[in-house]
Amino acid sequence: MAERVADIGEFGLIRRIGSLLDTDGRRSGRVTTGIGDDAASFLPRAGYELLVTCDSMVEGRHYLPAHTRSFDIGRRAMTLNISDIGAMGGDVLYALVSLGLPAQTLVQDVEALYKGFLHELNPLDASIIGGNLTGSGNGMVIDITLIGEVEQGKAVRRSGARHGDAVLVTGFPGRAAAGLQLLLRGAHEAGLADNPLVSAYTTPSHRARVGRLLAQTGYVTAMTDTSDGFPGDLGHVCEASGVGAKVVKEEIPVDEAVREAGRILGRDPYEFILGESDDYELVITCDPRHVPFLRSVAARCSAVPLTEVGRITAGRGIDMVLPGGRKIPLDAAGFDHFRR
Amino acid sequence: MAERVADIGEFGLIRRIGSLLDTDGRRSGRVTTGIGDDAASFLPRAGYELLVTCDSMVEGRHYLPAHTRSFDIGRRAMTLNISDIGAMGGDVLYALVSLGLPAQTLVQDVEALYKGFLHELNPLDASIIGGNLTGSGNGMVIDITLIGEVEQGKAVRRSGARHGDAVLVTGFPGRAAAGLQLLLRGAHEAGLADNPLVSAYTTPSHRARVGRLLAQTGYVTAMTDTSDGFPGDLGHVCEASGVGAKVVKEEIPVDEAVREAGRILGRDPYEFILGESDDYELVITCDPRHVPFLRSVAARCSAVPLTEVGRITAGRGIDMVLPGGRKIPLDAAGFDHFRR
Repeated sequence: MAERVADIGEFGLIRRIGSLLDTDGRRSGRVTTGIGDDAASFLPRAGYELLVTCDSMVEGRHYLPAHTRSFDIGRRAMTLNISDIGAMGGDVLYALVSLGLPAQTLVQDVEALYKGFLHELNPLDASIIGGNLTGSGNGMVIDITLIGEVEQGKAVRRSGARHGDAVLVTGFPGRAAAGLQLLLRGAHEAGLADNPLVSAYTTPSHRARVGRLLAQTGYVTAMTDTSDGFPGDLGHVCEASGVGAKVVKEEIPVDEAVREAGRILGRDPYEFILGESDDYELVITCDPRHVPFLRSVAARCSAVPLTEVGRITAGRGIDMVLPGGRKIPLDAAGFDHFRR
Repeated sequence: MAERVADIGEFGLIRRIGSLLDTDGRRSGRVTTGIGDDAASFLPRAGYELLVTCDSMVEGRHYLPAHTRSFDIGRRAMTLNISDIGAMGGDVLYALVSLGLPAQTLVQDVEALYKGFLHELNPLDASIIGGNLTGSGNGMVIDITLIGEVEQGKAVRRSGARHGDAVLVTGFPGRAAAGLQLLLRGAHEAGLADNPLVSAYTTPSHRARVGRLLAQTGYVTAMTDTSDGFPGDLGHVCEASGVGAKVVKEEIPVDEAVREAGRILGRDPYEFILGESDDYELVITCDPRHVPFLRSVAARCSAVPLTEVGRITAGRGIDMVLPGGRKIPLDAAGFDHFRR
């Protein structure tokens, strides 16, 4: 019978995870105390600021266990955090993983989860240096703290957007939202797991490498990742910067697959593109003169498009300019974890 | 009617917490990005290593909401983490707080929780620089990541105990375990909240200041805090150091209140002292010649006793020497979050 965490206990599970990290994970010479002590320790680099972020995933709320493999849940949980470090212009260094686990969780599922974490961390030469395990009565809770670094003074915040700046976005907003709807509708359809929109939801890609390269140019005035949907996250930039924005509907990149999903689901594709969608794309602002240079920098490291979709305005709120010139206000509320 | 988090939403709650931290919390000049961006950032100090730890508290599992005020839950959750940084010999710098909250949680309870966090952080000049809020279907989950620093090369690990070292412990092990049993037994008794053993469970004290001072002497070979009970945590030191230990029963400090609780509950007080008890005391090892000096250092900053209770041995496992000289093995399993 498959082993459960109740069978091997907390300390048995810690040993199991420790040996998995030893064989499959990276090691950093700057880590002076790893897993298994009261705290982990590492030596920071002179001339760098440290970045720290944390993000949780709760079973049934942030992922659907029936539709998602543990490996993919691990990938997704780590990607959300990597995305945050990248959106500040940083390099990822170390993760701490705090798990709340029902006693009946399969040990192999916990191992698959960690393999998912490492699948995302290894290419960045980043490692897991600590964490915490605890029991959980109802479903799994994954809480990751990710530590990164950025050259002193080079962090890009949400608060630097200025009136007249260009607004750009990577990739195609709305893919994850469309994927989630396909997943919910066609729960048992064969081949659904291979649908690129479904994958965009279950195992999103981060744009941390692009974010870091763009930040290093010094030309990005504000940056954030899209976890609440494009208008929601652009709204966060506007609020933090004390500005507004104008977005041109025809300029917003529309993925052909999102259009197709709209047809299948009988929905306007802009419901996905302008609604809540945790795509982990980047919203970027810069002086319009630097757009061509930034686009060329992005193109050097990634095939993902970087598209100019509008301008920062002196006002408040976000307007969308429709074909023909009429403006409508864009709701920038974003996803709210308690209101729904 | 009292406001609930569902009424003000995630972003409303973030604003509420932000303004509480502004008025009641400390600020650090080294923090370059605070709450409200993709990640927080800070400037590390040259010549220091960074320490990171995380610990969770799950409602119903790590605390009993019926018996504990939100303020005290906040104090306790932060104390567990502070204790870990102190047990490495470090100073506490910054916290990230990740909360899973049922939508029906009262806003005032969340605010009280944060006041509890600050009650513990402010005396250490430490601050909350980030976190995450998410919904939770079943009960509150509090996950704290705490960042500290220690002079390069001065971190004290569990792995440095050597054959012949003295074993010392701060305070009186077993107080929290006795307090928990009093709490469970006398759920509705008046005055129970003021019982010092009950307080030792609900709002334990950390020994971070003593731990830091002792570490700075350079004479501590290994150190850990007691969250699994004295034998369990001494066992962690022994395992990490590849040694055993011999503990003299008559030397283990016995709190008069624990003896009294034993009488009230009809239990041998050593069930508490040698069982699972999250006391957040320190277990320390050092060359026996340094014991008087370390005790004098500890006495300078705290009235809590530092007691020599045994020796590190070349073998494996922990033996307890009874009055008369007979040895019995001490179970060092400690608390296991999944096995019970």
